[in-house]
Amino acid sequence: MTYCVGLKLNRGLVMAADTRTNAGVDNIACYRKLHLWEKPGERVFMLLTAGNLAVSQAVVNLLSEQAHAESHDAAAPNLFTVTTMFQAARIVGQTMLGARTLVSTASGANSEAMSTTFIFGGQIGTEPPRLFQIYSEGNFIEAGADTPYFQIGEHKYGKPILDRVVDKKMRLGEAAKIVLLSFDSTIRSNLSVGMPIDMVLYNVDTLKIERQTRIEADDRYFNKLSSGWSKYLRDAVAKLPEFDV
Amino acid sequence: MTYCVGLKLNRGLVMAADTRTNAGVDNIACYRKLHLWEKPGERVFMLLTAGNLAVSQAVVNLLSEQAHAESHDAAAPNLFTVTTMFQAARIVGQTMLGARTLVSTASGANSEAMSTTFIFGGQIGTEPPRLFQIYSEGNFIEAGADTPYFQIGEHKYGKPILDRVVDKKMRLGEAAKIVLLSFDSTIRSNLSVGMPIDMVLYNVDTLKIERQTRIEADDRYFNKLSSGWSKYLRDAVAKLPEFDV
Repeated sequence: MTYCVGLKLNRGLVMAADTRTNAGVDNIACYRKLHLWEKPGERVFMLLTAGNLAVSQAVVNLLSEQAHAESHDAAAPNLFTVTTMFQAARIVGQTMLGARTLVSTASGANSEAMSTTFIFGGQIGTEPPRLFQIYSEGNFIEAGADTPYFQIGEHKYGKPILDRVVDKKMRLGEAAKIVLLSFDSTIRSNLSVGMPIDMVLYNVDTLKIERQTRIEADDRYFNKLSSGWSKYLRDAVAKLPEFDV
Repeated sequence: MTYCVGLKLNRGLVMAADTRTNAGVDNIACYRKLHLWEKPGERVFMLLTAGNLAVSQAVVNLLSEQAHAESHDAAAPNLFTVTTMFQAARIVGQTMLGARTLVSTASGANSEAMSTTFIFGGQIGTEPPRLFQIYSEGNFIEAGADTPYFQIGEHKYGKPILDRVVDKKMRLGEAAKIVLLSFDSTIRSNLSVGMPIDMVLYNVDTLKIERQTRIEADDRYFNKLSSGWSKYLRDAVAKLPEFDV
């Protein structure tokens, strides 16, 4: 499976993905699911992918090739020519549909097995940062004030902490901490989600990827977080009144 | 859907079930999923049911009718004649298979839609309390020292808290508090799990159901737990070091 989270906060975006892929429990591997494009000072894009890996990788390659093609076809806009995040999300959605058709036609596999879901965020020029969830049909929704985050893949174990604690006024470092706690709960409960975790913190209006990191299984901060969290959770439970009937 | 939890602790058993049933999101209702049988001083049984309601109710009725039949057939043991919890679990499993066949043959529905899962716990005489998870095929597993609890239905949202905090040396009241926190996380995230919650706390060797309760949506203790938990979780998060890259 996979676990990815994208948060849209007043101060920017936090995007994180695990790196485990699996075909059954006896065939696991490590692949990057966080992909970045940027033209510093002008635009940044961050993509998190869940689902069929062949389709996801094809989308990433197609998006990159379109963007870096020598001659830009005005009729076929790409990530580096669009002027809004909405247009960018449409391109990602269309490219996903195209890649899915390509892969499933070629392999003869059923289209359902080729299903993918993305979280796509970024900022272009003076437009505020925006965050989208793109479904396998290529359509998408945007995060708003009421629900400032998206999760894809194995979302259930890590949802309660996001639901209760995330606040769009948070600092990015605070939000990143909560995202990592959400990953910790998920990784403990689902073998098909695994370390390392790729994460990027994007500060609003910088139009540049500056805070990108990979958190390995032996990461000191992550392990401190995980053990501290277990302890504080037990303390919190102890403080609540006992059930008495 | 449904959410049920059964815990086996040194001091006894804690069993809880929500009461929501649904056919789609536009057809919900309230049904009891926690069922009890007892012969005070001799044996107690507690059953939690998830899955097809017709099958679950049929099983409960069949078990009760067998147990209360005037003449007991020695060749067909029932809950009130068996001498171990293992034998009792076999009877529940067999009755479930029988009910499933009955209902699916009669209705012509496919057997998959008739699927049910149970958590079954109790104590007979001097044997220690035991806890089983019974699958829709009628086979079952027993909770051991490493995993002292079972969940059925929508188990994911409420699992992290159980995983981190439950300890078999706990008092039943402490364990019940954790079970209710686990329900709170689940009810917040899945509409098909709903209040009220039925719960029973069984003290080892009492061979009697004395602590049984229904927790309604406006229950003061439950709401105090829920709001206290949100606050303490936020406090716990605040105490952890912020991510800084």
